[in-house]
Amino acid sequence: MRAHEIVLERIESDLAAGRLSVGNRLPGERALAEELGISRSSVREAIRVLEAMGMIRTAVGSGPRAGAIIAADPAASMTTALRLHVAAQTFPVQDVVRTRILLETWAVDAAARQEAVDLSDVEALLDEMDEPGVEPDRFHRLDAEMHAKLAAHAGNAVVREMMASLRGSIHGYVMAAVPLLDDWKAVADNLRAEHRGIVAAVQAGHPSKASRLVREHIEGFHGLTAETDSVTRRR
Amino acid sequence: MRAHEIVLERIESDLAAGRLSVGNRLPGERALAEELGISRSSVREAIRVLEAMGMIRTAVGSGPRAGAIIAADPAASMTTALRLHVAAQTFPVQDVVRTRILLETWAVDAAARQEAVDLSDVEALLDEMDEPGVEPDRFHRLDAEMHAKLAAHAGNAVVREMMASLRGSIHGYVMAAVPLLDDWKAVADNLRAEHRGIVAAVQAGHPSKASRLVREHIEGFHGLTAETDSVTRRR
Repeated sequence: MRAHEIVLERIESDLAAGRLSVGNRLPGERALAEELGISRSSVREAIRVLEAMGMIRTAVGSGPRAGAIIAADPAASMTTALRLHVAAQTFPVQDVVRTRILLETWAVDAAARQEAVDLSDVEALLDEMDEPGVEPDRFHRLDAEMHAKLAAHAGNAVVREMMASLRGSIHGYVMAAVPLLDDWKAVADNLRAEHRGIVAAVQAGHPSKASRLVREHIEGFHGLTAETDSVTRRR
Repeated sequence: MRAHEIVLERIESDLAAGRLSVGNRLPGERALAEELGISRSSVREAIRVLEAMGMIRTAVGSGPRAGAIIAADPAASMTTALRLHVAAQTFPVQDVVRTRILLETWAVDAAARQEAVDLSDVEALLDEMDEPGVEPDRFHRLDAEMHAKLAAHAGNAVVREMMASLRGSIHGYVMAAVPLLDDWKAVADNLRAEHRGIVAAVQAGHPSKASRLVREHIEGFHGLTAETDSVTRRR
C-alpha cells in the first residue's frame, strides 16, 4: 500500500466505526503524518483525494474554522469523474442522457406514489425560473437544482446524487449548445411549461404520467441540441 | 483556483480537445510543473486525484512503462466514492441495493431485446463459479464480474460502470455477512441456479422475465443478509 493510501484506509475505517462523522474536523496534517509514520506531503495527497471524492472540504486560515472537515457531497465526486470520462470519450454523452432518463423516470414515479408530497421547494425554483430576463446559465442551474429537488422526493439518496452528477457532467455541453439555438426565449418558455406539467403530475399522484412527461422533456431537450453534438463534442 | 486544480483543468481540456487519449502517457511531473508554473508536489497531488478518479494509472520504475498513463476506469472512482459515503452513512446500504436493482433490471431488459446476443463470456464465468470448492470471496468476485458482463450487453457504458461501482461499494458488507450464513453451500447453489435462469431468459429474448428474475435474485440475496445488517453496519 502506498503512503497516501494508508490515510485513505484510516479515514474510511474511522467513518465506518463511527469514530469520525460528517461535520467532524480531521486531525491536522502533522498529527496524521506522525501517527501513521508517513510524510506530510503524502498526507496532503490523501487530503486532495478525499476532497475530490466529496468526503472533506478544506478551509484556509488558522481560526477554529481552518482545516479539513468531514463532508458528504458524493455528487461532487461523481460529477468530476463523469465529466473527465465524458471528456476522454469513455462515456458517450448519449449514454449519460439515457442513464439520466432511467433514474429520473424512476424518481418521479416513486415521488408520485407518496402520500401528500409537499413540492413547495420545487415550486419556489420554478417561480425563480419564471422571472423575466433570467440568463441561460442561471436558468440551467436553477433547472438542475429543480430536477434534483424533485428527485429527492423519491427518497433514495444514491439515485438523487447520481442524477445530479449525470446532469452536472454534461452541463458544459448543454451550455455550449445554447448560442446555437435559434430562439432561446421560446426554448425556455417550453421548458417552463414542461416543468409545471411534470410537477403537477407528481402532485396529483400520477406516476406513469409523471414518468412519461419527464422522458419526453429530457429526450426533447437533447433532441433539440443533438444536431449541434458534433460542434459541442470537441469544444 | 488552487495549484493542483490547474493540472486537473489542463488534463480535462486536453482530453476534450483530443490532445490526450486513453493509453497516452502524461508529461512528466517536472515538465508539467515547469510548464504550469507550479510546484512538483502540487502536480503530484493532482496525479493522485486523477488516479483516484480512474483517469490514470501509474507505474513505478524508469523504463518506457514508467510514469502515468491515461486510463478509463470510471467504476474504480465511483466505487471508492460510494464506499466512503456508505461508510459515512450518507448512503444507506438499502439505497445502494435499490439503485442497483433499478439499473440492473433495465440492463437485462435491454440485453434481452437485442437480436442474437452472444452470452458466452457470461457463461464462462458461470462455469467457473460451478467449480467445486470455490471460496466465498472468489465466488463473489466472479459473481460481480458476471453481473457486470451481462449488463454490458445492454450497450450503455454509464449504466455498466455505475452498476459495477454500486456492487463494489458494498462488497465488504456482503463478505462480512458470509460467516453468519447457516449454510453457505446451499446459498451458493441457489445463486448459481438463479444466475442460469437469468442468463437463459436474456438468451431467449424475454425482457420482462429476465428483469423479474434479476429483481428477485438481488432482493432475495439481500433479504437473506438483512437480519445481519446491524452487525455488519459497524464493522
